[in-house]
Amino acid sequence: MTDNDRSMLIPRLAAFMEDYARCLDKDELERWPGFFAEQCIYKVTTYDNMSAGYPFGLIYADSRGMLHDRVKSLREANIYEGQRYRHIIGQPFVVQADGTEVRAETSFIVVRIMRNGETALFATGSYRDTLKVDSEGVALVERVVVCDSSRIDTLLALPL
Amino acid sequence: MTDNDRSMLIPRLAAFMEDYARCLDKDELERWPGFFAEQCIYKVTTYDNMSAGYPFGLIYADSRGMLHDRVKSLREANIYEGQRYRHIIGQPFVVQADGTEVRAETSFIVVRIMRNGETALFATGSYRDTLKVDSEGVALVERVVVCDSSRIDTLLALPL
Amino acid sequence: MTDNDRSMLIPRLAAFMEDYARCLDKDELERWPGFFAEQCIYKVTTYDNMSAGYPFGLIYADSRGMLHDRVKSLREANIYEGQRYRHIIGQPFVVQADGTEVRAETSFIVVRIMRNGETALFATGSYRDTLKVDSEGVALVERVVVCDSSRIDTLLALPL
Repeated sequence: MTDNDRSMLIPRLAAFMEDYARCLDKDELERWPGFFAEQCIYKVTTYDNMSAGYPFGLIYADSRGMLHDRVKSLREANIYEGQRYRHIIGQPFVVQADGTEVRAETSFIVVRIMRNGETALFATGSYRDTLKVDSEGVALVERVVVCDSSRIDTLLALPL
Repeated sequence: MTDNDRSMLIPRLAAFMEDYARCLDKDELERWPGFFAEQCIYKVTTYDNMSAGYPFGLIYADSRGMLHDRVKSLREANIYEGQRYRHIIGQPFVVQADGTEVRAETSFIVVRIMRNGETALFATGSYRDTLKVDSEGVALVERVVVCDSSRIDTLLALPL
Repeated sequence: MTDNDRSMLIPRLAAFMEDYARCLDKDELERWPGFFAEQCIYKVTTYDNMSAGYPFGLIYADSRGMLHDRVKSLREANIYEGQRYRHIIGQPFVVQADGTEVRAETSFIVVRIMRNGETALFATGSYRDTLKVDSEGVALVERVVVCDSSRIDTLLALPL
Protein backbone atom coordinates (compact mmCIF):
# COMPACT_ATOMS: atom_id res chain seq x y z
CA MET A 1 0.00 0.00 0.00
CA THR A 2 1.43 3.39 -0.93
CA ASP A 3 1.35 6.46 1.26
CA ASN A 4 -1.17 7.90 -1.08
CA ASP A 5 -3.61 5.03 -0.58
CA ARG A 6 -3.34 5.46 3.16
CA SER A 7 -3.99 9.16 2.93
CA MET A 8 -7.28 8.57 1.12
CA LEU A 9 -8.34 5.74 3.40
CA ILE A 10 -7.66 7.33 6.75
CA PRO A 11 -10.14 10.22 6.51
CA ARG A 12 -12.92 7.78 5.58
CA LEU A 13 -12.02 5.44 8.43
CA ALA A 14 -11.68 8.31 10.89
CA ALA A 15 -15.15 9.65 10.05
CA PHE A 16 -16.59 6.15 10.41
CA MET A 17 -14.92 5.61 13.82
CA GLU A 18 -16.11 8.99 15.04
CA ASP A 19 -19.68 8.23 14.02
CA TYR A 20 -19.50 4.86 15.79
CA ALA A 21 -18.38 6.63 18.97
CA ARG A 22 -21.12 9.25 18.59
CA CYS A 23 -23.74 6.56 18.22
CA LEU A 24 -22.79 5.11 21.61
CA ASP A 25 -22.21 8.45 23.36
CA LYS A 26 -25.55 9.84 22.20
CA ASP A 27 -27.42 6.71 23.19
CA GLU A 28 -28.44 5.96 19.61
CA LEU A 29 -27.90 2.25 20.22
CA GLU A 30 -30.36 1.22 17.54
CA ARG A 31 -27.91 2.53 14.92
CA TRP A 32 -25.05 0.48 16.33
CA PRO A 33 -25.55 -2.83 14.47
CA GLY A 34 -25.61 -0.82 11.22
CA PHE A 35 -21.86 -0.21 11.51
CA PHE A 36 -21.30 -3.93 11.00
CA ALA A 37 -21.54 -6.17 7.97
CA GLU A 38 -24.34 -8.77 8.01
CA GLN A 39 -21.73 -11.48 8.62
CA CYS A 40 -19.54 -10.08 11.35
CA ILE A 41 -17.70 -10.71 14.57
CA TYR A 42 -17.87 -8.39 17.56
CA LYS A 43 -15.76 -9.30 20.53
CA VAL A 44 -14.71 -7.51 23.71
CA THR A 45 -11.65 -8.95 25.39
CA THR A 46 -8.66 -7.89 27.49
CA TYR A 47 -5.02 -7.62 26.57
CA ASP A 48 -4.12 -10.38 29.03
CA ASN A 49 -6.79 -12.75 27.72
CA MET A 50 -5.73 -12.13 24.17
CA SER A 51 -2.05 -12.64 24.97
CA ALA A 52 -2.89 -15.89 26.72
CA GLY A 53 -4.67 -17.02 23.57
CA TYR A 54 -8.18 -17.29 24.98
CA PRO A 55 -10.42 -17.24 21.94
CA PHE A 56 -13.54 -15.77 23.55
CA GLY A 57 -13.95 -12.56 25.43
CA LEU A 58 -16.31 -10.80 27.77
CA ILE A 59 -18.76 -10.27 24.95
CA TYR A 60 -19.03 -12.24 21.75
CA ALA A 61 -21.38 -11.96 18.79
CA ASP A 62 -21.02 -13.43 15.34
CA SER A 63 -23.80 -11.85 13.34
CA ARG A 64 -25.51 -8.52 13.00
CA GLY A 65 -28.68 -10.16 14.25
CA MET A 66 -27.00 -10.93 17.56
CA LEU A 67 -26.07 -7.27 17.88
CA HIS A 68 -29.71 -6.29 17.34
CA ASP A 69 -30.73 -8.75 20.05
CA ARG A 70 -28.17 -7.26 22.36
CA VAL A 71 -29.55 -3.76 21.86
CA LYS A 72 -33.04 -5.05 22.56
CA SER A 73 -31.98 -6.61 25.88
CA LEU A 74 -30.10 -3.47 26.85
CA ARG A 75 -33.22 -1.41 26.23
CA GLU A 76 -35.36 -3.80 28.23
CA ALA A 77 -32.89 -3.73 31.10
CA ASN A 78 -32.75 0.07 30.98
CA ILE A 79 -28.99 -0.06 31.22
CA TYR A 80 -28.57 3.39 29.79
CA GLU A 81 -30.69 5.00 32.50
CA GLY A 82 -27.87 5.27 34.93
CA GLN A 83 -24.87 6.17 32.86
CA ARG A 84 -23.41 7.80 29.79
CA TYR A 85 -20.19 7.31 27.89
CA ARG A 86 -17.73 9.63 26.23
CA HIS A 87 -15.32 8.08 23.76
CA ILE A 88 -12.22 9.85 22.59
CA ILE A 89 -10.54 7.96 19.83
CA GLY A 90 -7.16 8.22 18.19
CA GLN A 91 -6.51 8.30 14.50
CA PRO A 92 -6.99 4.93 12.80
CA PHE A 93 -3.72 3.23 11.89
CA VAL A 94 -3.95 1.17 8.71
CA VAL A 95 -2.15 -2.12 9.26
CA GLN A 96 -3.00 -3.62 5.87
CA ALA A 97 -5.15 -2.71 2.88
CA ASP A 98 -5.85 -5.33 0.28
CA GLY A 99 -8.49 -4.39 -2.26
CA THR A 100 -11.62 -3.58 -0.30
CA GLU A 101 -10.44 -5.34 2.87
CA VAL A 102 -8.69 -3.12 5.39
CA ARG A 103 -7.18 -3.98 8.74
CA ALA A 104 -6.84 -1.06 11.12
CA GLU A 105 -6.13 -0.37 14.77
CA THR A 106 -7.52 2.59 16.66
CA SER A 107 -6.82 3.60 20.26
CA PHE A 108 -9.65 4.68 22.51
CA ILE A 109 -10.36 6.14 25.94
CA VAL A 110 -13.84 5.85 27.38
CA VAL A 111 -15.02 8.00 30.27
CA ARG A 112 -18.18 6.99 32.13
CA ILE A 113 -20.52 9.59 33.56
CA MET A 114 -22.91 8.32 36.21
CA ARG A 115 -26.34 9.77 36.83
CA ASN A 116 -25.10 11.60 39.93
CA GLY A 117 -22.46 13.34 37.84
CA GLU A 118 -19.48 11.22 38.87
CA THR A 119 -17.01 11.02 36.03
CA ALA A 120 -14.29 8.39 35.79
CA LEU A 121 -11.95 6.77 33.34
CA PHE A 122 -13.82 3.61 32.40
CA ALA A 123 -11.72 1.84 29.82
CA THR A 124 -8.78 2.29 27.49
CA GLY A 125 -7.67 0.03 24.71
CA SER A 126 -7.52 -0.56 21.02
CA TYR A 127 -10.05 -1.46 18.36
CA ARG A 128 -8.55 -4.14 16.12
CA ASP A 129 -10.72 -4.11 13.06
CA THR A 130 -11.19 -5.75 9.74
CA LEU A 131 -13.30 -3.52 7.54
CA LYS A 132 -14.88 -3.66 4.13
CA VAL A 133 -14.29 -0.33 2.44
CA ASP A 134 -15.81 0.19 -0.98
CA SER A 135 -17.85 2.68 -2.96
CA GLU A 136 -20.94 1.81 -0.92
CA GLY A 137 -19.33 2.72 2.37
CA VAL A 138 -17.45 1.30 5.31
CA ALA A 139 -18.56 -1.71 7.38
CA LEU A 140 -16.99 -3.68 10.20
CA VAL A 141 -16.42 -7.31 9.28
CA GLU A 142 -14.67 -7.92 12.60
CA ARG A 143 -14.17 -5.67 15.61
CA VAL A 144 -12.10 -6.97 18.48
CA VAL A 145 -12.16 -4.49 21.35
CA VAL A 146 -8.96 -5.13 23.31
CA CYS A 147 -9.18 -3.47 26.73
CA ASP A 148 -5.85 -2.61 28.34
CA SER A 149 -6.94 -3.48 31.85
CA SER A 150 -8.15 -6.89 32.94
CA ARG A 151 -10.26 -5.17 35.58
CA ILE A 152 -13.15 -4.44 33.31
CA ASP A 153 -16.49 -4.30 35.09
CA THR A 154 -17.90 -7.83 34.83
CA LEU A 155 -21.32 -6.28 34.55
CA LEU A 156 -20.10 -4.54 31.45
CA ALA A 157 -23.18 -4.31 29.36
CA LEU A 158 -22.88 -1.36 27.07
CA PRO A 159 -21.05 -1.80 23.80
CA LEU A 160 -17.59 -0.31 23.51
CA MET B 1 -23.61 16.77 1.12
CA THR B 2 -21.42 14.22 -0.61
CA ASP B 3 -18.61 12.28 1.01
CA ASN B 4 -16.22 14.38 -0.98
CA ASP B 5 -17.49 17.62 0.53
CA ARG B 6 -17.08 16.22 4.00
CA SER B 7 -13.55 15.09 3.30
CA MET B 8 -12.51 18.61 2.33
CA LEU B 9 -14.33 20.23 5.22
CA ILE B 10 -13.14 18.03 8.04
CA PRO B 11 -9.43 18.83 7.84
CA ARG B 12 -10.21 22.55 7.94
CA LEU B 13 -12.54 22.14 10.89
CA ALA B 14 -10.12 19.85 12.71
CA ALA B 15 -7.28 22.38 12.42
CA PHE B 16 -9.61 25.12 13.67
CA MET B 17 -10.75 23.06 16.68
CA GLU B 18 -7.17 22.14 17.54
CA ASP B 19 -6.11 25.78 17.45
CA TYR B 20 -9.06 26.73 19.69
CA ALA B 21 -7.93 24.10 22.21
CA ARG B 22 -4.32 25.29 21.99
CA CYS B 23 -5.38 28.85 22.64
CA LEU B 24 -6.96 27.81 25.95
CA ASP B 25 -4.28 25.30 26.94
CA LYS B 26 -1.45 27.78 26.31
CA ASP B 27 -3.22 30.57 28.19
CA GLU B 28 -3.52 32.73 25.08
CA LEU B 29 -6.97 33.83 26.18
CA GLU B 30 -6.76 37.13 24.31
CA ARG B 31 -6.95 35.14 21.04
CA TRP B 32 -10.08 33.31 22.13
CA PRO B 33 -12.79 35.76 20.99
CA GLY B 34 -11.15 35.74 17.55
CA PHE B 35 -12.46 32.23 16.93
CA PHE B 36 -15.99 33.64 16.93
CA ALA B 37 -17.93 35.70 14.44
CA GLU B 38 -18.81 39.26 15.51
CA GLN B 39 -22.43 38.16 15.99
CA CYS B 40 -22.18 34.92 17.91
CA ILE B 41 -23.50 32.80 20.73
CA TYR B 42 -21.29 31.07 23.26
CA LYS B 43 -23.00 28.92 25.82
CA VAL B 44 -21.83 26.34 28.35
CA THR B 45 -24.52 23.98 29.56
CA THR B 46 -24.98 20.41 30.75
CA TYR B 47 -26.58 17.46 29.04
CA ASP B 48 -29.32 17.33 31.68
CA ASN B 49 -30.12 21.05 31.39
CA MET B 50 -30.25 20.80 27.65
CA SER B 51 -32.47 17.73 27.71
CA ALA B 52 -34.80 19.48 30.13
CA GLY B 53 -35.05 22.35 27.65
CA TYR B 54 -33.49 25.06 29.82
CA PRO B 55 -32.47 27.73 27.35
CA PHE B 56 -29.60 29.24 29.32
CA GLY B 57 -26.51 27.61 30.68
CA LEU B 58 -23.72 28.14 33.14
CA ILE B 59 -22.17 30.70 30.86
CA TYR B 60 -23.87 32.72 28.17
CA ALA B 61 -22.58 35.36 25.79
CA ASP B 62 -24.21 36.69 22.64
CA SER B 63 -21.53 38.82 21.03
CA ARG B 64 -17.81 38.78 20.51
CA GLY B 65 -17.60 41.89 22.67
CA MET B 66 -18.97 39.93 25.63
CA LEU B 67 -16.24 37.35 25.12
CA HIS B 68 -13.62 40.10 25.21
CA ASP B 69 -15.15 41.40 28.46
CA ARG B 70 -15.02 37.93 29.89
CA VAL B 71 -11.32 37.58 29.11
CA LYS B 72 -10.69 40.94 30.74
CA SER B 73 -12.43 39.88 33.97
CA LEU B 74 -10.59 36.57 33.98
CA ARG B 75 -7.28 38.37 33.71
CA GLU B 76 -8.22 40.77 36.50
CA ALA B 77 -9.27 37.88 38.71
CA ASN B 78 -6.03 36.03 37.92
CA ILE B 79 -8.01 32.85 37.38
CA TYR B 80 -5.28 31.26 35.33
CA GLU B 81 -2.72 31.60 38.12
CA GLY B 82 -3.75 28.43 39.82
CA GLN B 83 -4.53 26.02 37.04
CA ARG B 84 -3.96 24.87 33.51
CA TYR B 85 -6.08 22.90 31.07
CA ARG B 86 -5.34 20.19 28.55
CA HIS B 87 -7.98 19.55 25.90
CA ILE B 88 -8.02 16.43 23.82
CA ILE B 89 -10.62 16.63 21.13
CA GLY B 90 -12.13 14.11 18.78
CA GLN B 91 -12.54 14.51 15.09
CA PRO B 92 -15.31 16.96 14.12
CA PHE B 93 -18.42 15.24 12.83
CA VAL B 94 -20.24 17.24 10.17
CA VAL B 95 -23.97 17.13 10.86
CA GLN B 96 -24.98 19.45 8.04
CA ALA B 97 -23.24 21.64 5.47
CA ASP B 98 -25.28 24.15 3.57
CA GLY B 99 -23.27 26.61 1.52
CA THR B 100 -20.94 28.36 3.94
CA GLU B 101 -22.91 27.32 7.03
CA VAL B 102 -21.77 24.14 8.70
CA ARG B 103 -23.11 22.36 11.76
CA ALA B 104 -20.64 20.08 13.48
CA GLU B 105 -20.23 18.18 16.72
CA THR B 106 -16.88 17.47 18.35
CA SER B 107 -16.21 15.43 21.49
CA PHE B 108 -13.78 16.71 24.08
CA ILE B 109 -12.03 15.69 27.28
CA VAL B 110 -10.49 18.38 29.45
CA VAL B 111 -7.92 17.59 32.12
CA ARG B 112 -7.16 20.22 34.77
CA ILE B 113 -3.68 20.58 36.20
CA MET B 114 -3.50 22.47 39.47
CA ARG B 115 -0.52 24.53 40.58
CA ASN B 116 0.60 21.78 42.98
CA GLY B 117 0.72 19.31 40.10
CA GLU B 118 -2.55 17.49 40.81
CA THR B 119 -4.07 16.29 37.57
CA ALA B 120 -7.71 15.32 37.22
CA LEU B 121 -10.37 14.75 34.63
CA PHE B 122 -12.24 18.07 34.66
CA ALA B 123 -14.93 17.81 32.01
CA THR B 124 -16.09 15.75 29.08
CA GLY B 125 -18.70 16.62 26.54
CA SER B 126 -19.45 17.76 23.06
CA TYR B 127 -19.09 21.03 21.20
CA ARG B 128 -22.24 21.62 19.18
CA ASP B 129 -21.27 24.26 16.70
CA THR B 130 -22.61 26.31 13.87
CA LEU B 131 -19.72 27.63 11.83
CA LYS B 132 -19.20 29.93 8.91
CA VAL B 133 -16.69 28.34 6.59
CA ASP B 134 -15.63 30.30 3.53
CA SER B 135 -12.54 31.38 1.63
CA GLU B 136 -11.67 33.84 4.41
CA GLY B 137 -11.54 31.18 7.09
CA VAL B 138 -13.58 29.48 9.75
CA ALA B 139 -15.56 31.27 12.48
CA LEU B 140 -17.94 30.11 15.20
CA VAL B 141 -21.40 31.56 14.81
CA GLU B 142 -22.65 29.48 17.72
CA ARG B 143 -20.82 27.19 20.13
CA VAL B 144 -22.85 25.28 22.67
CA VAL B 145 -20.57 23.40 25.03
CA VAL B 146 -22.61 20.49 26.35
CA CYS B 147 -20.92 18.99 29.40
CA ASP B 148 -21.76 15.34 30.09
CA SER B 149 -21.83 15.72 33.84
CA SER B 150 -24.14 18.03 35.73
CA ARG B 151 -21.50 18.29 38.43
CA ILE B 152 -19.53 20.99 36.73
CA ASP B 153 -17.70 23.25 39.13
CA THR B 154 -20.09 26.13 39.81
CA LEU B 155 -17.09 28.40 40.00
CA LEU B 156 -16.30 27.38 36.45
CA ALA B 157 -14.66 30.46 35.08
CA LEU B 158 -12.34 29.45 32.30
CA PRO B 159 -13.78 28.99 28.84
CA LEU B 160 -14.17 25.46 27.57
CA MET C 1 2.69 28.53 4.37
CA THR C 2 -0.67 28.35 2.65
CA ASP C 3 -3.69 26.47 3.95
CA ASN C 4 -3.14 23.98 1.19
CA ASP C 5 0.38 23.12 2.36
CA ARG C 6 -0.89 22.53 5.85
CA SER C 7 -3.66 20.27 4.62
CA MET C 8 -1.14 18.00 2.90
CA LEU C 9 1.29 18.03 5.79
CA ILE C 10 -1.09 17.31 8.63
CA PRO C 11 -2.25 13.84 7.50
CA ARG C 12 1.38 12.73 7.14
CA LEU C 13 2.30 14.11 10.55
CA ALA C 14 -0.81 12.65 12.17
CA ALA C 15 -0.04 9.15 10.85
CA PHE C 16 3.55 9.50 12.08
CA MET C 17 2.45 10.61 15.57
CA GLU C 18 -0.07 7.80 15.80
CA ASP C 19 2.55 5.23 14.86
CA TYR C 20 4.93 6.67 17.49
CA ALA C 21 2.20 6.27 20.12
CA ARG C 22 1.42 2.73 18.92
CA CYS C 23 5.08 1.77 19.18
CA LEU C 24 5.10 2.71 22.88
CA ASP C 25 1.64 1.35 23.68
CA LYS C 26 2.36 -2.00 22.05
CA ASP C 27 5.73 -2.33 23.76
CA GLU C 28 7.63 -2.25 20.47
CA LEU C 29 10.34 -0.15 22.08
CA GLU C 30 13.01 -1.36 19.67
CA ARG C 31 11.25 0.60 16.89
CA TRP C 32 11.26 3.81 18.93
CA PRO C 33 14.68 5.23 18.00
CA GLY C 34 13.70 4.79 14.34
CA PHE C 35 11.27 7.69 14.61
CA PHE C 36 14.23 10.02 15.14
CA ALA C 37 16.89 11.36 12.82
CA GLU C 38 20.46 10.15 13.44
CA GLN C 39 21.31 13.58 14.85
CA CYS C 40 18.46 14.37 17.20
CA ILE C 41 17.40 15.71 20.54
CA TYR C 42 14.90 13.98 22.79
CA LYS C 43 13.99 15.72 25.99
CA VAL C 44 11.28 15.25 28.60
CA THR C 45 10.63 18.30 30.76
CA THR C 46 7.81 20.04 32.61
CA TYR C 47 5.97 23.23 31.81
CA ASP C 48 7.32 24.89 34.96
CA ASN C 49 10.93 23.90 34.21
CA MET C 50 10.62 25.13 30.68
CA SER C 51 9.04 28.42 31.74
CA ALA C 52 11.84 28.91 34.26
CA GLY C 53 14.34 28.44 31.44
CA TYR C 54 16.01 25.27 32.74
CA PRO C 55 17.72 23.82 29.67
CA PHE C 56 17.71 20.17 30.70
CA GLY C 57 14.83 17.98 31.64
CA LEU C 58 13.99 14.72 33.32
CA ILE C 59 15.35 12.81 30.35
CA TYR C 60 17.83 14.05 27.80
CA ALA C 61 19.39 12.37 24.79
CA ASP C 62 21.19 13.98 21.87
CA SER C 63 21.65 11.15 19.40
CA ARG C 64 19.76 8.17 18.09
CA GLY C 65 22.45 5.96 19.61
CA MET C 66 21.54 7.23 23.09
CA LEU C 67 17.94 6.28 22.44
CA HIS C 68 19.03 2.76 21.51
CA ASP C 69 21.05 2.56 24.73
CA ARG C 70 18.03 3.69 26.66
CA VAL C 71 15.87 0.96 25.19
CA LYS C 72 18.54 -1.60 26.04
CA SER C 73 18.62 -0.51 29.71
CA LEU C 74 14.83 -0.52 29.89
CA ARG C 75 14.76 -4.08 28.60
CA GLU C 76 17.43 -5.15 31.08
CA ALA C 77 15.53 -3.53 33.94
CA ASN C 78 12.27 -5.16 32.80
CA ILE C 79 10.49 -1.87 33.24
CA TYR C 80 7.67 -2.89 30.97
CA GLU C 81 6.80 -5.94 33.05
CA GLY C 82 4.65 -4.03 35.43
CA GLN C 83 2.83 -1.50 33.34
CA ARG C 84 1.40 -0.48 30.01
CA TYR C 85 0.64 2.87 28.45
CA ARG C 86 -2.19 4.20 26.33
CA HIS C 87 -1.57 7.44 24.46
CA ILE C 88 -4.34 9.49 22.99
CA ILE C 89 -2.98 12.30 20.92
CA GLY C 90 -4.53 15.37 19.40
CA GLN C 91 -4.13 16.54 15.86
CA PRO C 92 -0.68 17.99 15.13
CA PHE C 93 -0.69 21.76 14.85
CA VAL C 94 1.82 23.08 12.33
CA VAL C 95 3.59 26.09 13.82
CA GLN C 96 5.99 26.62 10.92
CA ALA C 97 6.91 24.83 7.71
CA ASP C 98 10.03 25.88 5.88
CA GLY C 99 11.07 23.58 3.06
CA THR C 100 11.54 20.15 4.59
CA GLU C 101 11.75 21.46 8.17
CA VAL C 102 8.50 21.54 10.07
CA ARG C 103 7.77 22.68 13.59
CA ALA C 104 4.62 21.20 15.12
CA GLU C 105 2.92 20.88 18.48
CA THR C 106 0.72 17.97 19.44
CA SER C 107 -1.25 17.49 22.67
CA PHE C 108 -1.23 14.14 24.42
CA ILE C 109 -2.84 12.27 27.29
CA VAL C 110 -1.18 9.13 28.61
CA VAL C 111 -3.02 6.63 30.76
CA ARG C 112 -1.00 4.05 32.69
CA ILE C 113 -2.36 0.55 33.27
CA MET C 114 -0.68 -1.37 36.07
CA ARG C 115 -0.32 -5.15 36.14
CA ASN C 116 -3.15 -5.44 38.68
CA GLY C 117 -5.48 -3.60 36.32
CA GLU C 118 -5.40 -0.18 37.99
CA THR C 119 -5.82 2.52 35.40
CA ALA C 120 -4.90 6.14 36.00
CA LEU C 121 -4.17 9.34 34.16
CA PHE C 122 -0.37 9.35 34.04
CA ALA C 123 0.62 12.45 32.12
CA THR C 124 -0.72 15.18 29.89
CA GLY C 125 1.23 17.66 27.87
CA SER C 126 2.44 18.70 24.47
CA TYR C 127 5.01 17.37 22.05
CA ARG C 128 7.00 20.31 20.69
CA ASP C 129 8.70 18.92 17.64
CA THR C 130 11.03 19.84 14.85
CA LEU C 131 10.65 17.34 12.05
CA LYS C 132 12.29 16.61 8.75
CA VAL C 133 9.55 15.87 6.24
CA ASP C 134 10.60 14.88 2.73
CA SER C 135 9.92 12.29 0.07
CA GLU C 136 11.75 9.67 2.14
CA GLY C 137 9.49 10.07 5.13
CA VAL C 138 9.13 11.88 8.43
CA ALA C 139 11.79 11.97 11.17
CA LEU C 140 12.07 13.78 14.49
CA VAL C 141 15.03 16.13 14.61
CA GLU C 142 13.97 17.37 18.03
CA ARG C 143 11.20 16.25 20.35
CA VAL C 144 10.65 18.15 23.55
CA VAL C 145 7.97 16.47 25.65
CA VAL C 146 6.52 19.19 27.85
CA CYS C 147 4.50 17.65 30.69
CA ASP C 148 1.78 19.87 32.15
CA SER C 149 2.31 18.74 35.71
CA SER C 150 5.54 19.08 37.62
CA ARG C 151 4.58 16.01 39.61
CA ILE C 152 5.88 13.54 37.09
CA ASP C 153 7.05 10.30 38.62
CA THR C 154 10.76 10.78 39.27
CA LEU C 155 11.28 7.16 38.42
CA LEU C 156 9.82 7.89 35.04
CA ALA C 157 11.60 5.45 32.83
CA LEU C 158 9.44 4.73 29.85
CA PRO C 159 9.61 7.10 26.91
CA LEU C 160 6.70 9.43 26.36
